[in-house]
Amino acid sequence: MVVAEISVVPLGTGSPSVSRYVAECVKLLQESGLKYEVTAMGTILEGSLENILNAARRMHEAPFNTGAQRVVTTIKIDDRRDREISIRSKVDAVARRLTEE
Amino acid sequence: MVVAEISVVPLGTGSPSVSRYVAECVKLLQESGLKYEVTAMGTILEGSLENILNAARRMHEAPFNTGAQRVVTTIKIDDRRDREISIRSKVDAVARRLTEE
Amino acid sequence: MVVAEISVVPLGTGSPSVSRYVAECVKLLQESGLKYEVTAMGTILEGSLENILNAARRMHEAPFNTGAQRVVTTIKIDDRRDREISIRSKVDAVARRLTEE
Amino acid sequence: MVVAEISVVPLGTGSPSVSRYVAECVKLLQESGLKYEVTAMGTILEGSLENILNAARRMHEAPFNTGAQRVVTTIKIDDRRDREISIRSKVDAVARRLTEE
Repeated sequence: MVVAEISVVPLGTGSPSVSRYVAECVKLLQESGLKYEVTAMGTILEGSLENILNAARRMHEAPFNTGAQRVVTTIKIDDRRDREISIRSKVDAVARRLTEE
Repeated sequence: MVVAEISVVPLGTGSPSVSRYVAECVKLLQESGLKYEVTAMGTILEGSLENILNAARRMHEAPFNTGAQRVVTTIKIDDRRDREISIRSKVDAVARRLTEE
Repeated sequence: MVVAEISVVPLGTGSPSVSRYVAECVKLLQESGLKYEVTAMGTILEGSLENILNAARRMHEAPFNTGAQRVVTTIKIDDRRDREISIRSKVDAVARRLTEE
Repeated sequence: MVVAEISVVPLGTGSPSVSRYVAECVKLLQESGLKYEVTAMGTILEGSLENILNAARRMHEAPFNTGAQRVVTTIKIDDRRDREISIRSKVDAVARRLTEE
């Protein structure tokens, strides 16, 4: 299980708004069955490395299907193997540290 | 007003866990008065470009104060000037697109 | 053909130096046949999206094979489909603009 | 001394080409006196943290001065304090590991 963040940015679309393209990517995630969370700066996913890279690839392709000619996609993968991590466990670990002290 | 994401990663600390360092960064944000949101992959902030760069700088410094010898910090800034954006408005814009269709 | 940048960072290794891990990743690229360039902040590759994602996956795996317990990998993909891009053409385009004016 | 990578991406410009905007950013670096290197995926700088953040801020502002309405800027800072690093020393460390073995 890895936690990852994906950001897909179409360039040269003629409008500074990109929410239309992001929504298309989120629809693909809804179909994927992966756990995800849309934030103001990207989409956070949890799942196997393989499933996440497959989802990233489909998300990267989506803006080309709706007219974009150039897409810059960033995939950041956090993979920890000494113990299980999840979207929830990572946020909880920080919250716990904050209340401890 | 810009929306930004900051991720601070200490290297060579001897433990794969970094929540202790992230919590120190979040404490600095609590003192800063900036609006922020802790996610599984970083911290999202909204505010003026100047306030956000100042916060990023203090967050980057924090792990050195608690023993780290190397820190890799990533700051991603989304700055839109044709209309006001916020953490909330960005997430809402995507949600609206998803229900529209 | 896409141009991409990959950065692989092992956490909690006990030493702030990561060149040993980066060298292992570069060896994988040497075997891959992909065109690549090692920079001070990552490795830049050019090739098909599929070949690059496969290379990224092998590079991400490498530090686990030499003792790391946590790896943060960032993959940034620049994919332009209105015309061919390469590592060379992208740098040349900027150089040309600089001498033009 | 830190080594950093800066990438400045204007959105909604109407053309997938961004070299014009990147060239403006590079001109600012030429005036700054900082050591820099233009790569296919960003600009790598070395200098004090303060000088680099100042340069990043000017680079981020540049596309707005030539018509962009939205700019996404990524700043990645590698700051090592157990020993001096530079653009050169980081690339050399990897090359040395590759020939050693």
